[in-house]
Amino acid sequence: MIRIAVVGYGNIGKYAVQAVEAAPDLELAGVVRRQVKEDELPPELQNVKVVEDITKLGQVDAALLCVPTRSVPAKAQEIVELGINTVDSFDLHGESLVQYRREIGAKAKERGAVSVISAGWDPGTDSVVRALVEVMAPRGITFTNFGPGMSMGHSVAAKAVPGVKDALSMTIPAGSGRHRRQVYVELEQGAEFEQIREQIMLDPYFNKDETFVYQVNSIKDLQDVGHGVLLERVGTSGKTGNQQFKWEMRINNPALTAQVMTAAARASTKQEPGAYTLLEIPLLDYFSGDPEELIKRLV
Amino acid sequence: MIRIAVVGYGNIGKYAVQAVEAAPDLELAGVVRRQVKEDELPPELQNVKVVEDITKLGQVDAALLCVPTRSVPAKAQEIVELGINTVDSFDLHGESLVQYRREIGAKAKERGAVSVISAGWDPGTDSVVRALVEVMAPRGITFTNFGPGMSMGHSVAAKAVPGVKDALSMTIPAGSGRHRRQVYVELEQGAEFEQIREQIMLDPYFNKDETFVYQVNSIKDLQDVGHGVLLERVGTSGKTGNQQFKWEMRINNPALTAQVMTAAARASTKQEPGAYTLLEIPLLDYFSGDPEELIKRLV
Repeated sequence: MIRIAVVGYGNIGKYAVQAVEAAPDLELAGVVRRQVKEDELPPELQNVKVVEDITKLGQVDAALLCVPTRSVPAKAQEIVELGINTVDSFDLHGESLVQYRREIGAKAKERGAVSVISAGWDPGTDSVVRALVEVMAPRGITFTNFGPGMSMGHSVAAKAVPGVKDALSMTIPAGSGRHRRQVYVELEQGAEFEQIREQIMLDPYFNKDETFVYQVNSIKDLQDVGHGVLLERVGTSGKTGNQQFKWEMRINNPALTAQVMTAAARASTKQEPGAYTLLEIPLLDYFSGDPEELIKRLV
Repeated sequence: MIRIAVVGYGNIGKYAVQAVEAAPDLELAGVVRRQVKEDELPPELQNVKVVEDITKLGQVDAALLCVPTRSVPAKAQEIVELGINTVDSFDLHGESLVQYRREIGAKAKERGAVSVISAGWDPGTDSVVRALVEVMAPRGITFTNFGPGMSMGHSVAAKAVPGVKDALSMTIPAGSGRHRRQVYVELEQGAEFEQIREQIMLDPYFNKDETFVYQVNSIKDLQDVGHGVLLERVGTSGKTGNQQFKWEMRINNPALTAQVMTAAARASTKQEPGAYTLLEIPLLDYFSGDPEELIKRLV
């Protein structure tokens, strides 16, 4: 059995515990979180070891870092330092991701550990599809259309505007990789909607997209974990154009993220020390069981 | 530059030459085929080295085996024996594939070569998607719906019926992984359509699917290289159901197959000796260029 620690117990952490429990070859070593008073634990953690420090969980093969993206690099360094593999869903693309990979990769090699980074769905499994369609048609344009679904980053940005009590920003696909933002705000007593609307529209998170702001009485009543993507490419294979590819999903967002991270934890135990994105790991490594049986069933 | 030989010059071989020519990091060492009289060469091969024996092409890093599936295992053994990597689109699934992988894997390890097998689209890139959706939702059912498009195997089976001059079998998706066969036949002088229809319906290639047989004057007028797939899965991530995934493509069939094989040839140069399906190779290995730049762009 591969022993897994879940670090952080927010939205993704909860689903990560479920994904580990559902996997026949994984064992939940425990949950690492700040608040550990037994009478304050949610019912589903009653039979789970909950600690403040991962070293109190005994042998841990891989830690799922279910903490906010901005905390991931430091937390990964700390755990890889102990020689424990880490998996995260670090969700910044581009230079930030490459820099994080370089830093945690150096530490992982030094400590003989493996760090699988950005193992969610975008970056993550969508990245696998983006690479696959380029293998199939090296020239062309890929459009990634997100949603409809809640954007955590945009919701936080809207919530930070003074006078906003709670906010929810929906990402609405507008086609060809463009998106519309629909921002729902619940106001503090006495706050002026028109002013808040203007401030949100000017925010760098929103001012590049078509944005609509709506006042509502209760954000809680609007919340849902559903999300999705439509990834499209028309491209050229060799010298033949009009090759058409489409990847679409409608999913519970934290449940999918947690599941991908859990499979990546299994894969981490099969890699040489270092840092890996999902593009750098053979797909078969995410599975347990006899390779020939898997090939017979999947290939 | 990676030097590539194209072995066989049928439908896929033609597109393979184009895919190699279109790749900036690959060089066409030449084409291996039986008929090499210079005045009988098609115009596009005028400036290509065409030989009967691969050893006459000088240094070859990888050979694309563009020969019928039943000839692939023997041809692969012959070329791997020379220490040259091979790539094929061997298209039998299940036990035949696993057995071929085992045999060519042993030879490849012995000769220090790499053999990438079943590197088309199904088996091939569809297999990558089938594995990916299982990583994302380990419990559930995946349906692979093919077509509409011509099935080579079924066309050959219909053509083998006495009295059939030429035949074309279309695979029509009937949903949930079931397919309908529409078989078009051009008859020999004096052949009886009703008898031929019955014989086709009883053939093991056709008797498990809903099959319709039509008599036509000219098969040539119906031929097209278009094909497609719709792969669907609804499954459970952790303990959360109703996770929905869909992969769809509409493509020129031999052009896509040749492109995937060409990318696999590049990847073959980065693997340890042995045999690999696409599930056993990290996606990044199919690309040329700086890994960090690729990760920045694709992840």
